[in-house]
Amino acid sequence: MTMSRRSGRRAGTSQTREQIAAAARTLFAEAGYDRATFRAIATEAGVDPALVVHFYGSKQELFREVMQLPPELAAALAGVADGPADEAGRRLAAFVVGGMENPASRSLVLGRIRSASSHPDAAAMVRELVGRDMVRLTAAISGDRPQLRAVLIGSQLVGILITRYVVGVEPLASLPPDQLIEQLAPPFQRLLTGSLATA
Amino acid sequence: MTMSRRSGRRAGTSQTREQIAAAARTLFAEAGYDRATFRAIATEAGVDPALVVHFYGSKQELFREVMQLPPELAAALAGVADGPADEAGRRLAAFVVGGMENPASRSLVLGRIRSASSHPDAAAMVRELVGRDMVRLTAAISGDRPQLRAVLIGSQLVGILITRYVVGVEPLASLPPDQLIEQLAPPFQRLLTGSLATA
Repeated sequence: MTMSRRSGRRAGTSQTREQIAAAARTLFAEAGYDRATFRAIATEAGVDPALVVHFYGSKQELFREVMQLPPELAAALAGVADGPADEAGRRLAAFVVGGMENPASRSLVLGRIRSASSHPDAAAMVRELVGRDMVRLTAAISGDRPQLRAVLIGSQLVGILITRYVVGVEPLASLPPDQLIEQLAPPFQRLLTGSLATA
Repeated sequence: MTMSRRSGRRAGTSQTREQIAAAARTLFAEAGYDRATFRAIATEAGVDPALVVHFYGSKQELFREVMQLPPELAAALAGVADGPADEAGRRLAAFVVGGMENPASRSLVLGRIRSASSHPDAAAMVRELVGRDMVRLTAAISGDRPQLRAVLIGSQLVGILITRYVVGVEPLASLPPDQLIEQLAPPFQRLLTGSLATA
């Protein structure tokens, strides 16, 4: 009894925490950092604002925590390095398109973009997050200018996300995911293993 | 006297109109379609709100007009088709980077993105505008899937604009313009004259 009650309480706590995180991700994605207030996040999560403060302290801490890649996505991104190098572009394209097709991870990336575009603190945190995620992969695959490779890959991801999923420009908006992977594989391959232009 | 007075009046009118257009572009870029009200645009332009209504009628008309590529930019974009086909990617990269480095045209593109991301009407108008600008070029250079080529080029432009100029992710943010042209020339060349992947 004690055991089950205790684990019940734990599950309840982590469930509330995750509810708040999901609400925060939604609001950061839809409204941006500035307009996603603790009160609005609490309303979206259906909890008392005091609970948001209790779990996350400041909005900066909340943003930093909920905008991280979840461990399973970070592992999958790092896993793109495993396998034949000349197919790394296709593996990365499949990972990226899979992530954008999934509403939860799409909202994560969109939250980063909207927030970073609307507030300098959020921009600074997003710059830090981008460094963590993507540079690890480019550095594992190519020793040469991994930061620049990572940002150029990230910028393609941002561009596709906005034109395809947010603005819905055709024919990109209704291109089947497998065809989008085909379109992104060659430029990603170039950015992962090709030689970067040097002016 | 009559002549000079008349031309003075004409210059005044077109100057006021251009002041309103510039203010509208700034606000669409910074606040998006929804929050760029006639009142806010009038305040930014330093004119009476009634003048904004007088010149532009509805917000849709105002948006449609001020978010168009100015004739000289549209002509320069079309001119990318002139010259050796195997250097078209570099010419397009030079045009795009030149446009993004210029605060006025950068604010034009940013206004399209912010507005299209925040309001369905603006999204529909932007989809229409993108079609007009870029498809004319891709259709002139390659007969094969010009719309898809145009959107893929446009999405790269959007991605670079946001990561380099809005969020400021390094080392892309401080890459000299000539080096950015070098990085964009190969993918643009592929999207202009290469064969698109077909899954």
